Amino acid sequence: MFQSPIVHRFPTNPLIHPSQVKPSHPGLEVLGAFNPGATLFEGKSLLFVRVAERPVQEKGYVSTAVMDEESGELKILRFRLDDPKLDFSDPRLIRYDGVGYVTSISHFRKAVSADGRVFTMDDAPTLAGSGPHETYGIEDARIVKLDGLYYISYTGVSKSGVLTLLASTRDFQSFEKLGIIFAPDNKDIAIFPERINGRYYTLHRPALKHLGAMAIWLASGENLLDWGHHRDLISPRPGRWDCERVGAGASPIKTSEGWLELYHGADNNIRYCTGALLLDLEEPWKVIARSGDPFLVPHGPCEETGFMPNVVFHNGFVDRGDGQLDLFYGGADEVSCGATVAIADILSTLKC
Amino acid sequence: MFQSPIVHRFPTNPLIHPSQVKPSHPGLEVLGAFNPGATLFEGKSLLFVRVAERPVQEKGYVSTAVMDEESGELKILRFRLDDPKLDFSDPRLIRYDGVGYVTSISHFRKAVSADGRVFTMDDAPTLAGSGPHETYGIEDARIVKLDGLYYISYTGVSKSGVLTLLASTRDFQSFEKLGIIFAPDNKDIAIFPERINGRYYTLHRPALKHLGAMAIWLASGENLLDWGHHRDLISPRPGRWDCERVGAGASPIKTSEGWLELYHGADNNIRYCTGALLLDLEEPWKVIARSGDPFLVPHGPCEETGFMPNVVFHNGFVDRGDGQLDLFYGGADEVSCGATVAIADILSTLKC
Repeated sequence: MFQSPIVHRFPTNPLIHPSQVKPSHPGLEVLGAFNPGATLFEGKSLLFVRVAERPVQEKGYVSTAVMDEESGELKILRFRLDDPKLDFSDPRLIRYDGVGYVTSISHFRKAVSADGRVFTMDDAPTLAGSGPHETYGIEDARIVKLDGLYYISYTGVSKSGVLTLLASTRDFQSFEKLGIIFAPDNKDIAIFPERINGRYYTLHRPALKHLGAMAIWLASGENLLDWGHHRDLISPRPGRWDCERVGAGASPIKTSEGWLELYHGADNNIRYCTGALLLDLEEPWKVIARSGDPFLVPHGPCEETGFMPNVVFHNGFVDRGDGQLDLFYGGADEVSCGATVAIADILSTLKC
Repeated sequence: MFQSPIVHRFPTNPLIHPSQVKPSHPGLEVLGAFNPGATLFEGKSLLFVRVAERPVQEKGYVSTAVMDEESGELKILRFRLDDPKLDFSDPRLIRYDGVGYVTSISHFRKAVSADGRVFTMDDAPTLAGSGPHETYGIEDARIVKLDGLYYISYTGVSKSGVLTLLASTRDFQSFEKLGIIFAPDNKDIAIFPERINGRYYTLHRPALKHLGAMAIWLASGENLLDWGHHRDLISPRPGRWDCERVGAGASPIKTSEGWLELYHGADNNIRYCTGALLLDLEEPWKVIARSGDPFLVPHGPCEETGFMPNVVFHNGFVDRGDGQLDLFYGGADEVSCGATVAIADILSTLKC
């Protein structure tokens, strides 16, 4: 597959490998440290990494951990692989007797770097699931600085489905959980970093059961918890790199030419790449341009092999204001990676 | 199945049969006139009936009508039944080469009655689909009077999925379409008839793709278009009449004991019944009581046979303030029916 010359991967990739991450509980193993949200915090690059864990597996069984809603304690669920009630055809899902579980439980863990290339990760979870909508874990943080606070949007997974939630922090040590953004099924919340004509805006990605495709939608609101004015922005394109699904990456970036959004698309082989979308500055429901080809394509062992092979999933960047972005992304649902790209170079690919 | 003694079906059932309904276009046939929204308007019972139409079918083919987004004109799509790209295993859905369509296109048609028992229906559509999110039609209206206006919430179906929309009217002749309430997939919007502590409330029913069940959710907002503060209220109950899915009926009814919501539940045979839910007056996310058994169960040829056999689907009532409700409901996704029930009798079933 064509590799774009505008992207320069860090020589330090993978920045974080699950083998370097300390499990949060005895008896658990870390499967993945991936899909990092990112921001510049106190002059340093800060990643909010999704750490996925599962119980150490026993021969003949598959087991997973869920949070008990009442006690907040982890409990282990174990299923015999030869049990006819078990459906384990998707490596991310366990279905047993009509009830679905995920095979791992994720939390967020902070990793910090002064140079943006070598990261030191905390030994314990920074933010973990709590309450009824996060019993199967929290996933894929996006960080946006807005009105002087850092807001973290993320996916909560539970028996209520896959939904999106919001938290805020000033210091990345204490967090306030603010509640649900969109009801299930929804993912990939990318909140715009400023209001447009007085309203907040966000991208989101509903998942559809019967009809229609997994498209990127836009919503707006007078605050960050009541959302409406939904519009569908872009859909998968038949026969292209983004033919199966699309979803927002991190927050849109304001440029003189429009809001630049780096989004993911997957094809029928569930190969995830990153492309770009340019939205009108004042009327962000107007799509000015969209990548013909992705500029970030899975390449090398960290991205082409792993838990979900051929996946790059970008949901965080650090913008130092010099025209270069440090892009962060998950490789193969397993490791965290980085790359630099010039904003002008992405914009120039949208003019072809 | 047990028939509750508290419900008294109208002797005039079915109130509306599709054979009595004039097609909206030449070449179309009316499949159903069902799932009526209802309100008291100028002293009369007004139904807002879902009229489902399809092209007159030809041997060896299945065809459906969709609205062209640009022109607003109906166009006919025709598929050979022996085409291997066609999947027609669900009578409500046509899947062809990865794209989904519905087998009929619905609009709303007004029917009025002075006595509430015999209805006269308009000869032409009262409100039809328009715009990109209604190209496969509009379905299942609920009517609520709020702030002096009649608001109609309904389902819009299109290639963007199944979503919920809002319209308003003063006279049931001209309507203002106000836009999307919830992004797809969502249905079964039942807006509370007054604000609670300054906020509007609604019930809704997301459909879930991977994990979780089709449950009734509550949301609130400062206006009728921006919604948040989502909470899941009730889920399907394994082994019961409502084990497969639940969804709101019409608007909740204020009683001294709480908000009374008449909701539908379906079992594994997709038999739809109606039961009741009692919610706290001030904190409507608190469920006070829920029907052990449904009080409205499919019975007789209009409900046990038809397009979708064994379905009663209630989404409208007329409340004359005398303690009796005229309940309206669809039978078998084909006809419109009515029944009376005393509010006190429903409440008493919730005390067992």
